[in-house]
Amino acid sequence: MDKQKKVIAFVVYPEVTPLDLVGPLQVLKPLENFGPFEVVTVGERVEPITTDLGMRIVPERTFADVPRPFALVLPGGVLGPIQAITHEPLMAYVRSAGATAEVLASVCTGSLILAAAGLLEGQRATTHWSFLEALGRFGAQPVRERWVEDGRAMTAAGVSAGIDMGLALAARLAGDTVARSIQAIIEYEPQPPFGMVDWDWVERVDLKRSLLTPYVPAIQQLLAGRPDLLAKLLP
Amino acid sequence: MDKQKKVIAFVVYPEVTPLDLVGPLQVLKPLENFGPFEVVTVGERVEPITTDLGMRIVPERTFADVPRPFALVLPGGVLGPIQAITHEPLMAYVRSAGATAEVLASVCTGSLILAAAGLLEGQRATTHWSFLEALGRFGAQPVRERWVEDGRAMTAAGVSAGIDMGLALAARLAGDTVARSIQAIIEYEPQPPFGMVDWDWVERVDLKRSLLTPYVPAIQQLLAGRPDLLAKLLP
Repeated sequence: MDKQKKVIAFVVYPEVTPLDLVGPLQVLKPLENFGPFEVVTVGERVEPITTDLGMRIVPERTFADVPRPFALVLPGGVLGPIQAITHEPLMAYVRSAGATAEVLASVCTGSLILAAAGLLEGQRATTHWSFLEALGRFGAQPVRERWVEDGRAMTAAGVSAGIDMGLALAARLAGDTVARSIQAIIEYEPQPPFGMVDWDWVERVDLKRSLLTPYVPAIQQLLAGRPDLLAKLLP
Repeated sequence: MDKQKKVIAFVVYPEVTPLDLVGPLQVLKPLENFGPFEVVTVGERVEPITTDLGMRIVPERTFADVPRPFALVLPGGVLGPIQAITHEPLMAYVRSAGATAEVLASVCTGSLILAAAGLLEGQRATTHWSFLEALGRFGAQPVRERWVEDGRAMTAAGVSAGIDMGLALAARLAGDTVARSIQAIIEYEPQPPFGMVDWDWVERVDLKRSLLTPYVPAIQQLLAGRPDLLAKLLP
């Protein structure tokens, strides 16, 4: 790593949700052309890591290679983050790199990892809508916004929200003009074919339950040895 | 592959733009829970493939494993697709799998690959705004829309447009209710911090030139042996 550069490190871990990772990574990578930034993916090892889409991702660096990033970004997932918070090599990295990072960012349930590492204590933060209450039980002050800035922490809502958060972070680090250029380059003019989400409908059909219920046995199994964490996730 | 299933194959090739791939992949993967679909990434080999973000991607299957997908999806890139259209193993796959696929889809400059394979001849199609004219020279009828449906082809504009196109395709394949559920799951309620792109500004600062100029020498080198293709890309 170039010691003169501000390193933005995206953490890759098993069963991550790729869009959580790639949304802000695609947005922030061009910062390398606009300032003293280096944008990298980091993992426990430089080898293929599973994702929840079947494809695997090989990060560029190990945790040991990037001990003190300028910014630490945590993507989320469903079972991925739950497994992650029980995996000591990853949590040790998040705690130590997170202690000195000037920016802590997350997408979706990535904020649960930051919170489980003690990095969001009492802070306003967000996550995927289906995990907001859990985030509160991990010590943060959950807020339902597209993204939330509180001090050095910048947390985004579910999955696709990482793109919006990434643009806001790009503006903070390199200015509005750079962020607007990046927006044009990735042609980010969203046009969801059905407009915005109809949250009344989501509630009416109880999508949260049908979304999470299939994962309950796996969550219970992953956290069998950690009743403290299980109680926060499935009280 | 399960022969009873409709396979949606996302093509991974060197220097692909990950958001082009992952946007619609994250949207379409849940179709596996809603119908007889199997959603996979395919590459020339099951090994790490470079991307334009540094991280590498390992697809799940080879081209040979998935000779006749129901749907073929081509993500784009900058140098990636230009190299791809000169790489015969990839083009042979796109031509043969594309000949029988019921759906042809692309994101960004992925449509240049479909067009170069002769699969968009005379059809309305789109691509990244900076490559629209080139798309015309490859035989398609370029249209500037977020995504374009013409017969079995569904082509999206640049990078982030693959998410919108993916939702429209999910609706076509599995119905509006499924697409709306997926939209809620990935919390797709875009809120670009600077609103929509200001295209007058993009033109005023000539972003197209500053975006593409750094790539010109590499494009000329990649296509040194193919003056026919070079003339279409850099006339």
